Amino acid sequence: MTIDFKQDILAPVATDFAAMDKFINEGITSKVALVMAVSKHVVEAGGKRMRPIMCLLAAKACGATDIQMEPYRKLAAIIEMLHTATLVHDDVVDESGLRRGRPTANATWNNQTAVLVGDFLISRAFDLLVDLDNMILLKDFSTGTCEIAEGEVLQLQAQHQPETTEQTYLDIIHGKTSRLFELATEGAAILAGQPEYREPLRLFAGHFGNAFQIIDDILDYTSDAETLGKNIGDDLMEGKPTLPLISALANTQGEEHEIIRKSIATGGTADLERVIEIVQTSGALDYCSRRANEETQAAIQALSHLPESEYRQALYNLAQLALHRIQ
Amino acid sequence: MTIDFKQDILAPVATDFAAMDKFINEGITSKVALVMAVSKHVVEAGGKRMRPIMCLLAAKACGATDIQMEPYRKLAAIIEMLHTATLVHDDVVDESGLRRGRPTANATWNNQTAVLVGDFLISRAFDLLVDLDNMILLKDFSTGTCEIAEGEVLQLQAQHQPETTEQTYLDIIHGKTSRLFELATEGAAILAGQPEYREPLRLFAGHFGNAFQIIDDILDYTSDAETLGKNIGDDLMEGKPTLPLISALANTQGEEHEIIRKSIATGGTADLERVIEIVQTSGALDYCSRRANEETQAAIQALSHLPESEYRQALYNLAQLALHRIQ
Repeated sequence: MTIDFKQDILAPVATDFAAMDKFINEGITSKVALVMAVSKHVVEAGGKRMRPIMCLLAAKACGATDIQMEPYRKLAAIIEMLHTATLVHDDVVDESGLRRGRPTANATWNNQTAVLVGDFLISRAFDLLVDLDNMILLKDFSTGTCEIAEGEVLQLQAQHQPETTEQTYLDIIHGKTSRLFELATEGAAILAGQPEYREPLRLFAGHFGNAFQIIDDILDYTSDAETLGKNIGDDLMEGKPTLPLISALANTQGEEHEIIRKSIATGGTADLERVIEIVQTSGALDYCSRRANEETQAAIQALSHLPESEYRQALYNLAQLALHRIQ
Repeated sequence: MTIDFKQDILAPVATDFAAMDKFINEGITSKVALVMAVSKHVVEAGGKRMRPIMCLLAAKACGATDIQMEPYRKLAAIIEMLHTATLVHDDVVDESGLRRGRPTANATWNNQTAVLVGDFLISRAFDLLVDLDNMILLKDFSTGTCEIAEGEVLQLQAQHQPETTEQTYLDIIHGKTSRLFELATEGAAILAGQPEYREPLRLFAGHFGNAFQIIDDILDYTSDAETLGKNIGDDLMEGKPTLPLISALANTQGEEHEIIRKSIATGGTADLERVIEIVQTSGALDYCSRRANEETQAAIQALSHLPESEYRQALYNLAQLALHRIQ
């Protein structure tokens, strides 16, 4: 079966999704024209809005009815604002000029504007979160955003470090990617007042996030600009020790091992073709695919602790669709 | 009477101040070594810690007793962490290499690290704030931090704009400087459960912050690196339309007017000596001093709504001491 994003994932929460989009636009209101312009630019450049969709599906999977959805729509909007804020700062950090084919905030304006509007979006997200008036939710988000920032710094710390272990890699991707997915789904369970669904939804989102990021890192060695909106070899360029390289190091010796080591240590794409070849022939990509599969299965397994519903099915479909990117 | 910072301002809350310092160090704990190193570096580079001192004095002025001080010590630590986070991002924005004679985070590490550790400090500050378990306080801070970010962006927007009005200047300094002072004192009143003191303490801090920033902006045209830790002409270099220039534009015509206009529009210090001369002879600095005086008087006036105490007196002393920097 081929999974269709709109029909098999988005459809059950399509109304809520539209309302959520409206909340995002209302949420970024500011008296300062430049804040408005930059915020609108970056929010509109958004992708599939996977995180808010997961939040809305999680809420419905917890049994929230149509007339109860307003706070979850707000929560979903908050999630997307936090995501956007991290992207804006990431683009400054990575000195990116394009994201999903559109000029980034730092490229369109400058680093200064991007840093400060990112700060505004983080503050605004917390401001809207406070309005939801739930102390447990606030604690979850305030701890979570610390861990997200820590994951990003851990990634910087690991840059150009060939000794980076798979465990450190997992810590990095949990912070920079999976943690926000966790907040999106666990947050819905908290707001629903259903603590028994917190753990399964957090596990689903955490494993989903891991799979999602591993796949992203595989695509950096197998994809091209057209399908991914980013260039092959971007991670290598920055000397990021992602799983394909960590695994290639584990699987090789001698000259091949040294080429990978050196590429991480120095960055740059001088040896890109050779590195891609080694990553493919050494079995590193196979290992990464297997790990992405395992994470996806663990995510799906966690869903079994939720009652059966079309919303749980849509979460299942989302996990399958993410995996299909490498199949 | 000469006011001594330690004796006439710090002394009444010296014990709390030491405990607050300990909370800051505990608050920036992280599993990520780089987060720890950068956070420690920037927090230790702190100045007089005026904002947390104001918070502690405000708490005591509201009647908090010694054994009730723990939450206020935490609040004061949170204020300083937020302040530090904004400084870290400001230094990225301004491309500063030195702050108070020490290398900045962006200079010691790089922009990436500074942006992300700044994000961590903001998140950690909110995380500690949530622990104080006061929804009114949380709302005040989440709204306040939005306004701080907006003030910073408004300042960027006004850069190189000779048409900037005095009102816009006041909006900028309220956001970038006074708002955090307000959070420091109003937050203490909220935590003390004394809503009747919120308004006077907010007015005190807001006017104090305005005076403080106007004085800082005067010193950019009259001070030198030794006394201020920053170079004369820094604002001019960046084309910032601060009150000395706005006032000089209002007071001049013809060639002098054009020199000031051009300096704001282009930035740079090619005309620095001439600009300083015009700022001094046109009466602009006199006007700025008068405005700083008025703001200080308004701050002191607001204090009269608090009961008399050594703590209120210390807040009064702080306002007087800030003014003495230009006298």
